Amino acid sequence: MFMHNKRLMYTVRVSEPNPMLASLMLEQFGGPQGELAAAMRYFTQGLSDEDPGRKDMLIDIATEELSHLEVIGSIVCMLNKGVKGKLAEGNGEAEMLAEITQGGESHTLSLLYGGGSALVNSGAVPWTAAYIDTIGEPTADFRSNIAAEARAKIIYERLINVTTDPGVKDALGFLMTREIAHQKSFEKALYSIEPNFPPGKKPGLPEFADKYFNMSQGEGDMRGSWNEGGQWEYVDDREQQAAVDGGDGQASAKLKSAEKKANEQFAARTQSRPDFDPQTGADLGAGPGAGKTSSGRK
Amino acid sequence: MFMHNKRLMYTVRVSEPNPMLASLMLEQFGGPQGELAAAMRYFTQGLSDEDPGRKDMLIDIATEELSHLEVIGSIVCMLNKGVKGKLAEGNGEAEMLAEITQGGESHTLSLLYGGGSALVNSGAVPWTAAYIDTIGEPTADFRSNIAAEARAKIIYERLINVTTDPGVKDALGFLMTREIAHQKSFEKALYSIEPNFPPGKKPGLPEFADKYFNMSQGEGDMRGSWNEGGQWEYVDDREQQAAVDGGDGQASAKLKSAEKKANEQFAARTQSRPDFDPQTGADLGAGPGAGKTSSGRK
Amino acid sequence: MFMHNKRLMYTVRVSEPNPMLASLMLEQFGGPQGELAAAMRYFTQGLSDEDPGRKDMLIDIATEELSHLEVIGSIVCMLNKGVKGKLAEGNGEAEMLAEITQGGESHTLSLLYGGGSALVNSGAVPWTAAYIDTIGEPTADFRSNIAAEARAKIIYERLINVTTDPGVKDALGFLMTREIAHQKSFEKALYSIEPNFPPGKKPGLPEFADKYFNMSQGEGDMRGSWNEGGQWEYVDDREQQAAVDGGDGQASAKLKSAEKKANEQFAARTQSRPDFDPQTGADLGAGPGAGKTSSGRK
Amino acid sequence: MFMHNKRLMYTVRVSEPNPMLASLMLEQFGGPQGELAAAMRYFTQGLSDEDPGRKDMLIDIATEELSHLEVIGSIVCMLNKGVKGKLAEGNGEAEMLAEITQGGESHTLSLLYGGGSALVNSGAVPWTAAYIDTIGEPTADFRSNIAAEARAKIIYERLINVTTDPGVKDALGFLMTREIAHQKSFEKALYSIEPNFPPGKKPGLPEFADKYFNMSQGEGDMRGSWNEGGQWEYVDDREQQAAVDGGDGQASAKLKSAEKKANEQFAARTQSRPDFDPQTGADLGAGPGAGKTSSGRK
Amino acid sequence: MFMHNKRLMYTVRVSEPNPMLASLMLEQFGGPQGELAAAMRYFTQGLSDEDPGRKDMLIDIATEELSHLEVIGSIVCMLNKGVKGKLAEGNGEAEMLAEITQGGESHTLSLLYGGGSALVNSGAVPWTAAYIDTIGEPTADFRSNIAAEARAKIIYERLINVTTDPGVKDALGFLMTREIAHQKSFEKALYSIEPNFPPGKKPGLPEFADKYFNMSQGEGDMRGSWNEGGQWEYVDDREQQAAVDGGDGQASAKLKSAEKKANEQFAARTQSRPDFDPQTGADLGAGPGAGKTSSGRK
Amino acid sequence: MFMHNKRLMYTVRVSEPNPMLASLMLEQFGGPQGELAAAMRYFTQGLSDEDPGRKDMLIDIATEELSHLEVIGSIVCMLNKGVKGKLAEGNGEAEMLAEITQGGESHTLSLLYGGGSALVNSGAVPWTAAYIDTIGEPTADFRSNIAAEARAKIIYERLINVTTDPGVKDALGFLMTREIAHQKSFEKALYSIEPNFPPGKKPGLPEFADKYFNMSQGEGDMRGSWNEGGQWEYVDDREQQAAVDGGDGQASAKLKSAEKKANEQFAARTQSRPDFDPQTGADLGAGPGAGKTSSGRK
Repeated sequence: MFMHNKRLMYTVRVSEPNPMLASLMLEQFGGPQGELAAAMRYFTQGLSDEDPGRKDMLIDIATEELSHLEVIGSIVCMLNKGVKGKLAEGNGEAEMLAEITQGGESHTLSLLYGGGSALVNSGAVPWTAAYIDTIGEPTADFRSNIAAEARAKIIYERLINVTTDPGVKDALGFLMTREIAHQKSFEKALYSIEPNFPPGKKPGLPEFADKYFNMSQGEGDMRGSWNEGGQWEYVDDREQQAAVDGGDGQASAKLKSAEKKANEQFAARTQSRPDFDPQTGADLGAGPGAGKTSSGRK
Repeated sequence: MFMHNKRLMYTVRVSEPNPMLASLMLEQFGGPQGELAAAMRYFTQGLSDEDPGRKDMLIDIATEELSHLEVIGSIVCMLNKGVKGKLAEGNGEAEMLAEITQGGESHTLSLLYGGGSALVNSGAVPWTAAYIDTIGEPTADFRSNIAAEARAKIIYERLINVTTDPGVKDALGFLMTREIAHQKSFEKALYSIEPNFPPGKKPGLPEFADKYFNMSQGEGDMRGSWNEGGQWEYVDDREQQAAVDGGDGQASAKLKSAEKKANEQFAARTQSRPDFDPQTGADLGAGPGAGKTSSGRK
Repeated sequence: MFMHNKRLMYTVRVSEPNPMLASLMLEQFGGPQGELAAAMRYFTQGLSDEDPGRKDMLIDIATEELSHLEVIGSIVCMLNKGVKGKLAEGNGEAEMLAEITQGGESHTLSLLYGGGSALVNSGAVPWTAAYIDTIGEPTADFRSNIAAEARAKIIYERLINVTTDPGVKDALGFLMTREIAHQKSFEKALYSIEPNFPPGKKPGLPEFADKYFNMSQGEGDMRGSWNEGGQWEYVDDREQQAAVDGGDGQASAKLKSAEKKANEQFAARTQSRPDFDPQTGADLGAGPGAGKTSSGRK
Repeated sequence: MFMHNKRLMYTVRVSEPNPMLASLMLEQFGGPQGELAAAMRYFTQGLSDEDPGRKDMLIDIATEELSHLEVIGSIVCMLNKGVKGKLAEGNGEAEMLAEITQGGESHTLSLLYGGGSALVNSGAVPWTAAYIDTIGEPTADFRSNIAAEARAKIIYERLINVTTDPGVKDALGFLMTREIAHQKSFEKALYSIEPNFPPGKKPGLPEFADKYFNMSQGEGDMRGSWNEGGQWEYVDDREQQAAVDGGDGQASAKLKSAEKKANEQFAARTQSRPDFDPQTGADLGAGPGAGKTSSGRK
Repeated sequence: MFMHNKRLMYTVRVSEPNPMLASLMLEQFGGPQGELAAAMRYFTQGLSDEDPGRKDMLIDIATEELSHLEVIGSIVCMLNKGVKGKLAEGNGEAEMLAEITQGGESHTLSLLYGGGSALVNSGAVPWTAAYIDTIGEPTADFRSNIAAEARAKIIYERLINVTTDPGVKDALGFLMTREIAHQKSFEKALYSIEPNFPPGKKPGLPEFADKYFNMSQGEGDMRGSWNEGGQWEYVDDREQQAAVDGGDGQASAKLKSAEKKANEQFAARTQSRPDFDPQTGADLGAGPGAGKTSSGRK
Repeated sequence: MFMHNKRLMYTVRVSEPNPMLASLMLEQFGGPQGELAAAMRYFTQGLSDEDPGRKDMLIDIATEELSHLEVIGSIVCMLNKGVKGKLAEGNGEAEMLAEITQGGESHTLSLLYGGGSALVNSGAVPWTAAYIDTIGEPTADFRSNIAAEARAKIIYERLINVTTDPGVKDALGFLMTREIAHQKSFEKALYSIEPNFPPGKKPGLPEFADKYFNMSQGEGDMRGSWNEGGQWEYVDDREQQAAVDGGDGQASAKLKSAEKKANEQFAARTQSRPDFDPQTGADLGAGPGAGKTSSGRK
């Protein structure tokens, strides 16, 4: 069960309203690397995790992320507080228009959300659960969590880099640091599973697990520990990259005769005959002086 | 520049068409952990990476993932090959209906995509770039890549667990193994950056980087290396979890007087008076015999 | 700040796993009328509401909805618990396939989410913030809240109607009833604003506020208090429904001469001449024996 | 059957093109509270409503909303008319770039939609049927309709507040007023159902219908008619908020032995051991001088 | 202005309710090739088209498509009519569950939409304006319209192929045929623009307009009128496919020195050193017995 | 199998970074008419096409479009190269804020994607497979391909019209021209199918294939080859537009008696009585002085 304490986890002090900065901050409210995504990623994992230690930690951190959501949302509301009342009460049309369209998405946020904090990213795209990559296998999910914390840390770093308001900067520093702490916890939990690589249960097939296929070739080909050294077999030859199973590289399915026949009917009906050169809509469209196969206007 | 060789990277041999299995396989064609997501994740990173070794590797692997996309897509097409011609040519209404609705999403895929391989997941949800978590910072992106490979490996493992067709199982084994190999390469590249933790450039604030907040309390609280030991300060006390900056835990913004006034007008106009008990729409709706504050129908 | 208590708000007792029922229950976990939508609707309103009483209530109820989210998510996890381990450990391919494809979306949820509770609706569509209709004006938002509670109540009612498991039915009854209680609170808060109709600040234009336009005509036209009686002027005449301002019903804009000229160039370049009958791609495509204006195959 | 009269429902007179204002207006063309959403909400309800009076009204109003869609779309087209021809005909690159990027989303709309009126909101997000909250139960749907009209009224009010063009302002006033009229009709239809509260058929459970849980506590706790008075039981005690059914607040499911065993295997394989402190990827990544449990860079 | 006549454009006679068939029919109600998509495609084009003849036709056909939307929606409602009342009134739990989960998405549609006709496709995915490809240039838009009519015709053909109910089949035949008629009108309008190829205003660059690049090579390479004959230059040589401008095939930008310096800092900070072989998280995760570069579990 | 050559298909030379122009260019990277959409449209068709010539061509062109995706993505990266390092390294807050918010979506792209090329359109909307209209029937799909090439050609034309950088303009000219060449190939393939109109297999019903319904009437009605001439029967009379099958224009379904009864219960429970005039929530909300049926505030 969730409970709420009316104090924020971190005090928010905004120097002056700034709707454009507000719209940037939304990145961590309703954006893909934001706090709702974090909270929901850990919450959905926590609900189904069978390991009591991890379950406890996941709900601890999910709850903290909800508290961060409240902090960043409060920052957004404070930054929008200048425009909010004026828009609602209709004080000054032309000034209003200028104020909310000075950059970014602030006009959308003002018009549609009335200067509140909406679950959209800084580009006004609504939050979607497609951002959540929980799949219910801890050896994968905890790698996802580590990566998610790393990404969130970077977005906060960038927000700090474009903010001059000291109170906002201060709160962002707290939020950024907590992502580091969470990453450390998730790392501990992952490496407390032994073994955790390869993730899941099935081992890889030995004949394919150590090959590196050099699929992109030309000036710029490089070697490094990711494709060189004892563990790697480096496959350069284009012929050996195709049909690596030794087969013919074709796709086939065994069909019943009724299936086969229906497919043949379909193929016959829709055949593009290679043996003649039809007049086409493009020929018609190129106009009378264009010749049969005009590539452009004369 | 991309080029194409008409042989598949792995030969596909399907024993018999099965539209339902086809719809499961779509998970790795147009699903969040699928091959298009993988290819696009690495391709977008490769385009902007400044490090020549990583750039090379990212395009190598992106290209391989496109080749995997072709393999899994060919599996889908072969599994759908029985229903395709019959639907197109209209051979047998009732039988057709039964065949495409035997389970899962196969009816959608047949109706809308004509038995082809569509960029949707196994639940028919269209692929979205919201699945791509590239953010342009290698110390975060490579953690994302490691996690993505881990997730893809698991989905292949689950697909193998529900497949009985030996040719499909065989190809899935190859695809699963390659995710392991890619994860290894990405791990090497990440750890070749020194240091890579915390990700990005800014260090954490020392006062918040080692704290663990026990936000979820009750029976089931656990300790482990993720919240216990030399590096962790464990914060249990609810009072110390709020307003950790030592402030009042409130959100505030300095407003200009016109802003303040507009907000006050807005607040006055929309005040919910706590001091009287209005008749409401629910009261009206509960009906004449229900009394003023009915909680349900009598 | 949010906190968490390890006990659920309501005890969950599932009689036997049932992945199909699990996928139905997701409607209230990650669906449009579900608990996350409710929690986020009230949370975003609460963050920016200027009225202390409403702000308190909104966060109270948002927090309760998060606790409901945990209850319904726990129901989903329990209903999926039979398939989860088997899928992860690979115990029995054919049986597994049958089990997860017995109906609905259970295969998607198993494959992609490993039998956890995902933020998708019962049709596997990811949750989106497009479900949230918060706009930051209490005289509108509280009507939205009343409506949202009414909808959620109905979905729970339907879930109860299709469930036979007594423990699940019991918990659903609790959740359904709380929507009724929340609706009552929101009604009280709305009607404590005086006046609250019309919503917002601007009055309607008297010449259009009492008209009812009978746009759909024919057998079935009906009158009732919604379009009949002292307050309504019923407009039946098609002529009086168009251009109700008394103008010509056209759209016009004053253009600068360069703008006008560019538009004229554009119009001239792309004119469809009404005065001749071109041969078309359809004519070509209908085949040699079809005549110029074939409507179908001969 | 729908028919069309070439005159608009309201004459549109735009003083001068303004692509930025055009992009704001899109909020009511392709936005969540816009005219397409309104038309489709009532149309889908009207198709399945069993009550002849409501069915008639729903189609009347749906048809009027389609006519409003045409009015607002015509406003958008007129406001874009200055940029449209110039972009199509390529008159003046640098000027063009400046003109379409002066603010907001106008560049997107020009580039992608050629200066037409697209079904996107003012932030360029495509319209989605996720905005439609029709659920097929009149006691809920008509509350949704009332709320939707209230929201639409507010968005028009805000658009009027940021518009200086008198012709646009005039048409917006008409559109805003009609939302008030529609709300009145929907209110009448709702309250003509007796009883209509609680919505749907099932009554609430008496033990939970009158409780108010004070989930958010601290300075700012308030009482009002929404949680105080004869009908309400106010639950303040955290202990009485959890497991309100009197159970243990845990989630459980009865599993078959094979299910149990598979889950145990899964748990054992993926256990995070709490009893030792592993070296982690973060430790490796923090660099040689960082010590085993670095919280940041030294 | 739109108006409505209470008679459908085509009479709908359903032999018996069938929720599964209803969910298939949704493909043309709320699916990508369905009637709403058609209506909105032509309506948005019609609003901004400068040509009076095309404008008239676009609104004629948009209006007819809305009338078709009503027909297909009515079919859905009739097919759902058996389940609707039972679900709402709660008559028979177990039977209800079986009935709505017999296949496809019918459970979602019943639960969430109460047996109405929702703006989703047959896979329950909400309609999105991303389906609309209007771009405001008639020489492109009319080709889109021709293609859209062709696709819609095919989906109706497939629906007819899976339907046994004679009344439904009959109405589908009407709807299918109208797509053919509309395609003919759009073809006429397109070819009445002279010239209409290439679409738009700018001619192609002669050096690239007639080349065909054989990018996919191997067994299965074919020639036909699409890449062979007088108009085509066939480019087979991989060397001549890259950097066709004769340059070095690299991407470059001229940077200011501050920009250059910042990029160099970034590159240095995040360099993956190719010259040493780090221990990685995968190495840690493979477990103590696995060796430094395990490719799988031993 | 796909392979990659490190040289681009066209050399990219950017004169100076310009994040705003970068965001415009994204239209053809991650937008609906962009290169990923093109590549995936042809790739999915190629995988399932039964005709060897078309299959070859589709994969040829899909591969070329992937190569174009790389070119346009490289343009985006080069245009963003000025802001990228500065944002990552934190060089200059205020300057940074100004630079990334000078217009359009550049702030989103910088913040969220770090100045890389993301799979979003110029309005920051993530790419979705809803853009792909492949349905698996060549007589429809090739019309879709022709239309898609036409649209892409226009977007490139518009991008050229707003670009002053000569290197970018040059590359855009190449990309635009290739769309013309592709359209020509697709036209040839379509018209090599005989017949190809009507698309698919079923002929239209003769009684409906040649009718043109004049649904939009009034000043502006026009005739042209699209609705006039030997092939067309022009239906003007509103009566003849409804119920064209000669029936009553109603929707009906034969119900079993239990179904009928449940529906009647539902209708009775939710009836809106037309015979009395209820007090409503709007009446309550309009305030004491407003009278029972206030249309606005007095």
